[in-house]
Amino acid sequence: MIEFAWPVRVYYEDTDLGGVVYYANYLKFMERARTEWLRNLGFEQDELKDRFDVIFVVKSVELDYLQPARFNDELLVSVKPIKVRGASLLVEQEIIKQNEKGILCKGMIKIVSLTASNFTPCPIPGAIMQKAQHKE
Amino acid sequence: MIEFAWPVRVYYEDTDLGGVVYYANYLKFMERARTEWLRNLGFEQDELKDRFDVIFVVKSVELDYLQPARFNDELLVSVKPIKVRGASLLVEQEIIKQNEKGILCKGMIKIVSLTASNFTPCPIPGAIMQKAQHKE
Amino acid sequence: MIEFAWPVRVYYEDTDLGGVVYYANYLKFMERARTEWLRNLGFEQDELKDRFDVIFVVKSVELDYLQPARFNDELLVSVKPIKVRGASLLVEQEIIKQNEKGILCKGMIKIVSLTASNFTPCPIPGAIMQKAQHKE
Amino acid sequence: MIEFAWPVRVYYEDTDLGGVVYYANYLKFMERARTEWLRNLGFEQDELKDRFDVIFVVKSVELDYLQPARFNDELLVSVKPIKVRGASLLVEQEIIKQNEKGILCKGMIKIVSLTASNFTPCPIPGAIMQKAQHKE
Repeated sequence: MIEFAWPVRVYYEDTDLGGVVYYANYLKFMERARTEWLRNLGFEQDELKDRFDVIFVVKSVELDYLQPARFNDELLVSVKPIKVRGASLLVEQEIIKQNEKGILCKGMIKIVSLTASNFTPCPIPGAIMQKAQHKE
Repeated sequence: MIEFAWPVRVYYEDTDLGGVVYYANYLKFMERARTEWLRNLGFEQDELKDRFDVIFVVKSVELDYLQPARFNDELLVSVKPIKVRGASLLVEQEIIKQNEKGILCKGMIKIVSLTASNFTPCPIPGAIMQKAQHKE
Repeated sequence: MIEFAWPVRVYYEDTDLGGVVYYANYLKFMERARTEWLRNLGFEQDELKDRFDVIFVVKSVELDYLQPARFNDELLVSVKPIKVRGASLLVEQEIIKQNEKGILCKGMIKIVSLTASNFTPCPIPGAIMQKAQHKE
Repeated sequence: MIEFAWPVRVYYEDTDLGGVVYYANYLKFMERARTEWLRNLGFEQDELKDRFDVIFVVKSVELDYLQPARFNDELLVSVKPIKVRGASLLVEQEIIKQNEKGILCKGMIKIVSLTASNFTPCPIPGAIMQKAQHKE
């Protein structure tokens, strides 16, 4: 199975006084990777909204903080669709340091597809579903 | 059982182009509330570190996003210790709008107590444990 | 002359690995204070947009970082309108520690009033102008 | 004169409910570019601190917001040292959209070099000065 991964460099803005990445910021890194994963599949979120009236909304997250990331670290953030069904998409994401073993942070992100104009659930666009499943 | 709750106002900085609070920022609100809960129990985190060599580190989070918070909303963020044992503290947190029913975001936050100078787990300071349990 | 000031507590999220408030975050504190200043004058920015088709946009900022703010500091962020003319509002803001002398950060913020629906400059609403000037 | 420029993609985290990049976040983009500029000159800030006891601190910023950046925009953030003297470094930075004319945000950032262990000003390390000036 081919996974998608996106590189993220840790800057000052990402750290806190503990000298490590602030715990909320891993969610930013994971969203950057999901955005690039969709782009890589051929989907731009602004086009999805404007042309297809579809937005993606995060319904729940589970994060395990295993080891801290630090200033200047070069991270890799993976995106792996686990389950795509109906309006719901479950994505597993891991953050590692490039060229090192060991996971720093692991996430399970549940996303739903909504009709942008009325915020009701709608099926994940077929083209995304096919491509996402093809990756599995 | 008496819970602790801390008010948070939503500002521009907290929102994203979807017009709602960005999904990572609820973790900021929850940490503000935990900081104030500790302060309310008589503990300042900088003193805990400098005088007692103790820091708290988040090990895992589970967040359910039930309804979005929006610009100008006046939120209340609760802190409810669920389990305090050894080096580990499990906290349940809910975010609601003041004077309204319905939970916007619900979190389960697992925290561990570490010796600051060597990052090994150490028991939650007894005084916190007593006070946290007394609140239950 | 009566100035408006808004209290801001420094949390983990605001700091960086240098142990002080990250330099961009002072702009967040200043915007919170401007939002509360407007609210105190009787203006809610969401109402201004929805009912009067007016938004405020920052055109330029000048910040001097004089002393760092740190975790747990209780800050006061002042708002002082310096010049209100046409579509333009110049605001001076200072950040101090409560009950201490000495300015931590000083800002001059230039804001313009825009018609929300077409992004062209429009006069600062008269009621704001009067109240802002009355404060001087 | 050869300038340094660093690409920055705009993600959800960077925007606010106005649909554009939040005004404080341009300072994050500029710091990323300065960090990469130093790295490109051969300097890692964590090494500068650990091995040479030197840190860089921003003393003042002037930002002009000329046009908004939006979600998905591919930006280029330039770094141009204007004056390097003693402990002080003045840097001009511009943010543009890739492959488009027109500056979105322009900044003048004044930085000072400090001895990390006692926070007193110290000369900008000679190697940086030479390389920075050589770029001019």
